Amino acid sequence: MAVTLKDVAERAGVSRSAVSRTFTDGASVSAKTRAKVEKAANELGYAPNALASSLTTGRTKLIGLIVNNFHNPLILEVFDLFTRGLQDRGLRPLLVNLTDATDPAASLRMLRQYSVDGVIVASSTLPSSFAESFRQAGLPVVHAFGRYSATPKVHVVGIDNVACGRMAAESLIRRGYRRVGFLGGPSTATSTQDRAAGFLAALAEEPQISVGASYATDYTFDAGRAEMRRLLQDGPAEAYFCGDDLLAVGALSAIEEAGLSVPGDIGLIGLNDMEMSRWQIIGLTTIRQPVAHIIDAAVDLVVTTIENPDCAPETRLFPCEVIERRTLR
Amino acid sequence: MAVTLKDVAERAGVSRSAVSRTFTDGASVSAKTRAKVEKAANELGYAPNALASSLTTGRTKLIGLIVNNFHNPLILEVFDLFTRGLQDRGLRPLLVNLTDATDPAASLRMLRQYSVDGVIVASSTLPSSFAESFRQAGLPVVHAFGRYSATPKVHVVGIDNVACGRMAAESLIRRGYRRVGFLGGPSTATSTQDRAAGFLAALAEEPQISVGASYATDYTFDAGRAEMRRLLQDGPAEAYFCGDDLLAVGALSAIEEAGLSVPGDIGLIGLNDMEMSRWQIIGLTTIRQPVAHIIDAAVDLVVTTIENPDCAPETRLFPCEVIERRTLR
Repeated sequence: MAVTLKDVAERAGVSRSAVSRTFTDGASVSAKTRAKVEKAANELGYAPNALASSLTTGRTKLIGLIVNNFHNPLILEVFDLFTRGLQDRGLRPLLVNLTDATDPAASLRMLRQYSVDGVIVASSTLPSSFAESFRQAGLPVVHAFGRYSATPKVHVVGIDNVACGRMAAESLIRRGYRRVGFLGGPSTATSTQDRAAGFLAALAEEPQISVGASYATDYTFDAGRAEMRRLLQDGPAEAYFCGDDLLAVGALSAIEEAGLSVPGDIGLIGLNDMEMSRWQIIGLTTIRQPVAHIIDAAVDLVVTTIENPDCAPETRLFPCEVIERRTLR
Repeated sequence: MAVTLKDVAERAGVSRSAVSRTFTDGASVSAKTRAKVEKAANELGYAPNALASSLTTGRTKLIGLIVNNFHNPLILEVFDLFTRGLQDRGLRPLLVNLTDATDPAASLRMLRQYSVDGVIVASSTLPSSFAESFRQAGLPVVHAFGRYSATPKVHVVGIDNVACGRMAAESLIRRGYRRVGFLGGPSTATSTQDRAAGFLAALAEEPQISVGASYATDYTFDAGRAEMRRLLQDGPAEAYFCGDDLLAVGALSAIEEAGLSVPGDIGLIGLNDMEMSRWQIIGLTTIRQPVAHIIDAAVDLVVTTIENPDCAPETRLFPCEVIERRTLR
């Protein structure tokens, strides 16, 4: 049987109202009463019902966490950090799987139905219309790993993907590669578009280096492998900036399957620094995306926005750094 | 502004009660009225508030999904399948991160607070006391990937880990290995204990084969690699059954780093068949755990138990199979 507020009041020898006030943020209750109530609640294993109290506070403390790629191991780190970050603040993640979702309105209905206090979109491939439509509907929203804009419509927390593209180009230029390529993710993803833009712009300043660009169908191992197999048939470049680490590992596999070596025959640099990239069996040179900072900031920002729904959209970008391992010469 | 039930009633030209009945499972409403209400609701983007309606139905349609290992890529498949399975049934996963949790009572308070309708524990390392304490408290619970018992206290959906241990032993025996080992996960995990028991029992029937067993500290790449490095110093066996695929990939890395080859010098067989195991760069021979069947059954069983809370604890085990790739001779 569930322990009720009445049980706690009886055991603590206080009024029901005193128990209620003890568990209501900001309500007035004496230190002595609070101590009695908390002792009784602990002894009985009582937890206030967050959903019932939401009817008076207007807050469910549920945060929708929206994800649409369950093949990228980076998302595991995201889940771990998000769930801990939310739990530490007394919030709970309601996980929403938008794989294959195309209609922001349907997603919005799903979130509304659960009266989430706010939403964190954790995706670099969902169009910005998703996050924007949530905000237009009055839901506090933060787009993590999204594209920032000079005229932002929603909070964005992430990295400067254009700068990352430049950073990758500079790594390849510095090592003297003369034929390089971009092996991107899906050409519709803003992250891919921005990484390509930075990479190609930096290389446009180096006319002695030839450069190509091609796009995998998705941010997956299989797509990276398939695209590299195609490139190997056409005569590959000396080194590739891959759209993310998972594509790079797929490319690495295709190269080794063809009897070639990395970095002996072809160099690779990725982006993300997912946990697996530092595995000795992979050893991927990559650009580290500071995932923990991004998620911490996203959680902070969604909490701030719940408190102050009219705050202006804000952009928080975190610097990336090249992590040297074994896949560039 | 949120669209209310009243707005829908006005637009559809029906009573508020008619709208309410349209969105209540099992309530009586004419097909004509239902059609009017659904049309109006779609036009307005109305979604019934699941939490408000929970006060009358006693159901929140929230299912707690409990996980405690965010380093194993298998969990990504679990998340994807669980969230889709729940969403398809109009349920929502409330994600609970129990990494480092030791107190079932604290976890129970967290679940109670959100009035979840049921709980799925997705872990082979959390002690069975967690799931049992949830059931004792009257919460419908299913332990996926848990240990089954002849006198079950909670629903368990998973595999027969003892049989899997036997299956691994038979694969190594058939290939003529004479010195074999079990490189297990944490010795406190029931999955590890049962896999070891089956493996060692099968090999006890083959006195010509020498056998050892050792245990990694966790189901992670790093732990598998560290344990194999230790084994390599002591003079390794000819082949290992690794406690899961992630440990096997860690072991593979340690072997290759030592300048040895798989399967030339040392053979490996894992368990799970996580997505990564079929990557050509890994190519792990392993025992496939039918994750999709397990999760489908877990979702079905939690739904059944919510409908019928007094149903007797049930065990559903799914057969595993050896997937031959490149890591055994």
